[in-house]
Amino acid sequence: MTDSAVLSLAKDLIGRPSVTPIDEGCQELMISRLEAIGFSIERLVFEDTTNLWARRGTEAPLFAFAGHTDVVPSGPVEQWHTPPFEPTVIDGYLHGRGAADMKGSLAAMVIAAERFVAENPDHKGSIAFLITSDEEGPFINGTTRVVDTLVERNEIIDMCIVGEPSSTHAVGDVVKNGRRGSITGDVIIKGIQGHVAYPQLARNPIHQALPALAELAATQWDQGNAYFPPTSFQIPNVASGTGASNVIPGDFHVQFNLRFSTESTVDDIKSRIHSVLDAHGLEYDLAWTFSGHPFLTDTGTLLDAVVKAVDEVNHQKPELLTTGGTSDGRFIAQMGTQVIELGPVNATIHKVNECVKIADLEKLTDMYQKVLEKALA
Amino acid sequence: MTDSAVLSLAKDLIGRPSVTPIDEGCQELMISRLEAIGFSIERLVFEDTTNLWARRGTEAPLFAFAGHTDVVPSGPVEQWHTPPFEPTVIDGYLHGRGAADMKGSLAAMVIAAERFVAENPDHKGSIAFLITSDEEGPFINGTTRVVDTLVERNEIIDMCIVGEPSSTHAVGDVVKNGRRGSITGDVIIKGIQGHVAYPQLARNPIHQALPALAELAATQWDQGNAYFPPTSFQIPNVASGTGASNVIPGDFHVQFNLRFSTESTVDDIKSRIHSVLDAHGLEYDLAWTFSGHPFLTDTGTLLDAVVKAVDEVNHQKPELLTTGGTSDGRFIAQMGTQVIELGPVNATIHKVNECVKIADLEKLTDMYQKVLEKALA
Ligand SMILES: [Zn+2]
Ligand SMILES: [Zn+2]
Repeated sequence: MTDSAVLSLAKDLIGRPSVTPIDEGCQELMISRLEAIGFSIERLVFEDTTNLWARRGTEAPLFAFAGHTDVVPSGPVEQWHTPPFEPTVIDGYLHGRGAADMKGSLAAMVIAAERFVAENPDHKGSIAFLITSDEEGPFINGTTRVVDTLVERNEIIDMCIVGEPSSTHAVGDVVKNGRRGSITGDVIIKGIQGHVAYPQLARNPIHQALPALAELAATQWDQGNAYFPPTSFQIPNVASGTGASNVIPGDFHVQFNLRFSTESTVDDIKSRIHSVLDAHGLEYDLAWTFSGHPFLTDTGTLLDAVVKAVDEVNHQKPELLTTGGTSDGRFIAQMGTQVIELGPVNATIHKVNECVKIADLEKLTDMYQKVLEKALA
Repeated sequence: MTDSAVLSLAKDLIGRPSVTPIDEGCQELMISRLEAIGFSIERLVFEDTTNLWARRGTEAPLFAFAGHTDVVPSGPVEQWHTPPFEPTVIDGYLHGRGAADMKGSLAAMVIAAERFVAENPDHKGSIAFLITSDEEGPFINGTTRVVDTLVERNEIIDMCIVGEPSSTHAVGDVVKNGRRGSITGDVIIKGIQGHVAYPQLARNPIHQALPALAELAATQWDQGNAYFPPTSFQIPNVASGTGASNVIPGDFHVQFNLRFSTESTVDDIKSRIHSVLDAHGLEYDLAWTFSGHPFLTDTGTLLDAVVKAVDEVNHQKPELLTTGGTSDGRFIAQMGTQVIELGPVNATIHKVNECVKIADLEKLTDMYQKVLEKALA
C-alpha cells in the first residue's frame, strides 16, 4: 500500500533530526513543494535559527499557517519502542519525535495548500506559511523576529492557524482561540543574618515574608470570563538558608509565575503584588520577566471558518479553550491577527514514543483545506 | 618582665594548634600540673577524641571545672594581625586562636587549683577537671561520654563551673546559670508536581504550607520565666522547586529550630507543631533532631559561691542569664549537677584576631579560686 500524501511528507520530516534550533532541511522540503504551486519564498536566518516566510498572492486578506520544524530532544532512547528519528507506522499510528508536535501538522498544511490551490488557482487574498526552527527553545530568533520583519514593512497577517497540538482525545475536539499571558517575578526578601540563639539581633526574611506570600497565594486576581479561566498565581521556586540549622538567613528568594486572563493587565498585576509586599513592610528587590500578553480570537471570519470546518469533518463542533501553556500564537496575535490553534492530539508530545493517529492527519488535512476554502475561496 | 603563671600557661596552650578533635598535647600539659598537686588522672580516649578526668580527693561534695582544649579553625590567616597559633601580647591583650574560647579559662582553672591546694591541702570534698577535645565539633565522643562513664560508676558531680566565655564587656559581668534547650525539625510537605499552566492537575506544597508556617512563626510558645526568655522558633532553611518557572514543585522542605525555656517540654513542642500542620490539612514527613534539654541552676551553694566570688573581685554582682547557644553544660546538668558558666568576654570568639585581656585572666583566676574556697574550704 502506498503512503498517502500527508503520511509520506510527515515521514520525510520526522526522518530529519531537527532538535531546536536545527532545521535539518525540513524547511527546504516544504519550500520545494510550495514553490511548485506558486509561493514566493523568503529564507529569514537570524543567528542560529532558520525561518521561512512563504506567500502566494499579494492581495488581502492574508491567511497564514504557522508552525515550527524544530522538535524537543528524544529523551532516553532506550525507552522508545522505535528509533525516535525513524518514522514508523504501528497499528494505524505514526511514531517518531515530532509526529504530533508538529511535523504532522506541517505536512497537513502543505497538502491542504496543494489541494486548495489545485482547485482554486485564482483564490482571493493570499496564503502564507510562517515557519521557524526555534519554537521549543528560547523563542528569541524565531517567530517573534519574523513578525517584527513583517510589521516593519506593514505586511500584516489577518488570519492565522497555528498547528500546535490542541486536541485532547480526537483531532479537532478542542481548538485554542486564545492563550493566557504569562509573567514571572523573582523577589529577594531581605532580612538580617544572625544566630538562631540571638533572634533579637537578626531579622528572619522567611518569617517576615510568610504572611505576604500566604496572602498572594490566596488572592483572587480576577474571575476570568467566558473564554478565560481566572488568572492563576503559582510559586514554583523558593530558596533560603545557609544549610546550618543555627543560622537565621539574610535573604529569601521567592519566584512566582502568573498565567493571566484578558481581565487583568500586566500593570495591574505588578502593582497589586507590590502593594501586598509593601503592606507587609518587606524590604525586597523584585525583577520581572514578561513572557507574553494574553490574546483572544472571538467570533469572526477565522473562528467561524474553523468551527464549521471541524464540524463538517467530525460532525461535532470543537470546544473553544484558552487553557494550557504559551505558544508562538502570542507573538502573531500582537499584529492584531485573528489566531486559532488547531492540531493533533497532544497526549504524547514531549514524551517518549510520541505518535499521531494517521487517520487524524488525514482529517486535519481536510480541516485545514476547508478553512482555506471558507476564508479564501 | 616575667609572664604571670596564668599568662604563661595560656600561652603554652595557645601554641598548640588543637583544632577539633585534636588535643595536640594540651591535656598532657594540664596533667603534669595537676598530678604535681595530687590529682589522680584518667585519660578517656573515645574514637578521635581525647578526654581527661582528673580528681583530687574521694569525698563529697564533688566540685568540677569543665572545659575543652579544642578550638575552631583559624579561618583566613591573612586576616589575622598575628599568627593564630603563636600567642602574642599586644597592649595588654593576649592574641591567638583559643585565647578566649577557652584556653585562657583552662589556664585560670589550673592556676586557681594550684593556689587553692597550696593554701588548703586538706580541703573538704573533691576537686575535679572534666576536659574534652570535642566541644566545638559533633559533641559525640566528648563530655557526653565522660558523663556516661561517671554515671555508670555513680560518680556524680555536685557542682560544676564551665569555663565558656560568658562575659559581655568585662570578665564576670555575666554568668550563665542555665541554657535553653534546642530541637530541630525537618519537614517535607508533599504536594503533586505539575505544570503551572494546569494548576488544577497539581497541588503546590508551598501554597499549602504558607498559612501553617505563618501560624508557627507567629506562635507564642510560652512567656519564659524569671530566668529564661520565651521559647523562640526560627526557620533557618527552606527549599523547593525544580528551578524552572513553569513547574509546580512536588515537595517543599522546611527546617525549623526552637530554643526552648524550662516552661516548654520537648513533647509539648512536638505535639503543638504537629497540631498546626495537621489542622492545615498538610501531608508531610517530619524528622526531629534533639540537641539538648534546657537546664537551670537556681539559688544554691554554687550560685551563691559564684555571685560572691565575682562580687569580691569586681565589686559588682554578675548578671544571671540563660541566653545564647548550647554548651557542654547541658550534658553535665543531666546528672543533676549545679552548673554555672563563668569565663572571659566573648566578643572575639570564633572570629579572626581572637584575644583576651590579660587583666581579665588574672581576675578570672581569682574568681575561680574564691569559688573553690567558698565551696570546699
Ligand atoms: Zn509545538
Ligand atoms: Zn567554647
